[in-house]
Amino acid sequence: MCELLGMSANVPTDIVFSFTGLMQRGGRTGPHRDGWGIGFYEGRGLRLFQDPQASADSEVAQLVQRYPIKSTAVIGHIRQANVGAVSLANTHPFVRELWGQNWCFAHNGQLADFASAQGFYQPVGDTDSEAAFCELLNRLRSYFTQLPSLDKLLTVLVEACDEFRQAGVFNCLLSNGDWLFSYCTTKMTHITRRAPFGPATLKDADVTVDFHAETTPNDVVTVIATDPLTDNEAWVLYQPGEWKLWRDGVIYSEGKA
Amino acid sequence: MCELLGMSANVPTDIVFSFTGLMQRGGRTGPHRDGWGIGFYEGRGLRLFQDPQASADSEVAQLVQRYPIKSTAVIGHIRQANVGAVSLANTHPFVRELWGQNWCFAHNGQLADFASAQGFYQPVGDTDSEAAFCELLNRLRSYFTQLPSLDKLLTVLVEACDEFRQAGVFNCLLSNGDWLFSYCTTKMTHITRRAPFGPATLKDADVTVDFHAETTPNDVVTVIATDPLTDNEAWVLYQPGEWKLWRDGVIYSEGKA
Repeated sequence: MCELLGMSANVPTDIVFSFTGLMQRGGRTGPHRDGWGIGFYEGRGLRLFQDPQASADSEVAQLVQRYPIKSTAVIGHIRQANVGAVSLANTHPFVRELWGQNWCFAHNGQLADFASAQGFYQPVGDTDSEAAFCELLNRLRSYFTQLPSLDKLLTVLVEACDEFRQAGVFNCLLSNGDWLFSYCTTKMTHITRRAPFGPATLKDADVTVDFHAETTPNDVVTVIATDPLTDNEAWVLYQPGEWKLWRDGVIYSEGKA
Repeated sequence: MCELLGMSANVPTDIVFSFTGLMQRGGRTGPHRDGWGIGFYEGRGLRLFQDPQASADSEVAQLVQRYPIKSTAVIGHIRQANVGAVSLANTHPFVRELWGQNWCFAHNGQLADFASAQGFYQPVGDTDSEAAFCELLNRLRSYFTQLPSLDKLLTVLVEACDEFRQAGVFNCLLSNGDWLFSYCTTKMTHITRRAPFGPATLKDADVTVDFHAETTPNDVVTVIATDPLTDNEAWVLYQPGEWKLWRDGVIYSEGKA
């Protein structure tokens, strides 16, 4: 299995603290040694770092940990391979351009015998995850010729996710830079930080940060993870079948299958 | 204007030496301060590093200079902006998935009033370069439903490039990981290194490398650049209208408009 990391914020915020915690689970405090990746939206651009190496040993991961990239939407992932070899092409998150936007996707779980229909988007690697991402985007394209309203988009997205979960475990994060969609079938959790900010301590590394010193009173920052990354905060668990669409750090829409 | 860097090799080879020379031209020995990027194919995957900052000052560029990523096909670029603001979305190279492959493109030059027809691929940023890339891929998709033979592909590619150059300057590099296509309208040069290998000295930094110590007798490595990167080797100039498709370090096909 794998672990996911997401962030949605109302001001460009760096995710160094949470990323540092997650990276330890890629070979040090956790078994997810088979690659890692993280995508940061910067305006309409997407900055993607990936490595098929274990994150705990990755020089690129070390760079990202000391390089505070500010973003309002982030998707990260550490991999413990089940379907598909350990390779760059099988490393999450996956990215495609749709309607002139960068769409970014990461998946935790496994889909049995997932076969995507033929369509415009085709997987580059061998994972069930990338096949599911392509299928999602192909469906969106078949329903809409341009970016629809969020509510219309959500109807198609949620219906597809509800179908995919019949084939196995499908916890996922998806973003187009404007919003962050999260879907849980087994395990997902989030925390929303806002004023008054306090200190937080990582579970996986001896690191404490005082968010009060790094934020302004209007900041709202939500972090989503497979398992809580800190041990002194009250993370909120998703229920199986629950989905939430985050925008500017807060829930825009949510529901449950 | 901008500068291009390409590599085609018959064995996975690192491009640290050439990249180090090019990066100096992004703010130190050259005026190309408006961002840089480089894509390395690793198997079917593509590892992309980009930064809208000047390469001479970029921490990510420093990482790439000390991190020998081995690849058989590489496309790099440093930018001096003309069309489009300085931003990540306008930073080359651009990437799209086509037929389950990562296609990567960088452009040096400027196309006047370039308007791409509506199509499947749409630019994310504002550059003429990305619009031309999308138009290229849209044409390929309209001609072929799957990857055709290289000769058929080349016919469409060269015809499109010949048309684009009517609108301005169109030096470009394009790759799908298997081959590297290069097209010159004003300025492009290459060097092919093979046994017996000797020393090479960068023009833009006080760096000499002895390729004899870093290669085997069967290695063939071609580097393509806008301007020669070394001052003790005989770089070969492209003629205006000349194109070459490189594969495994050697020319697979070439021609001239």
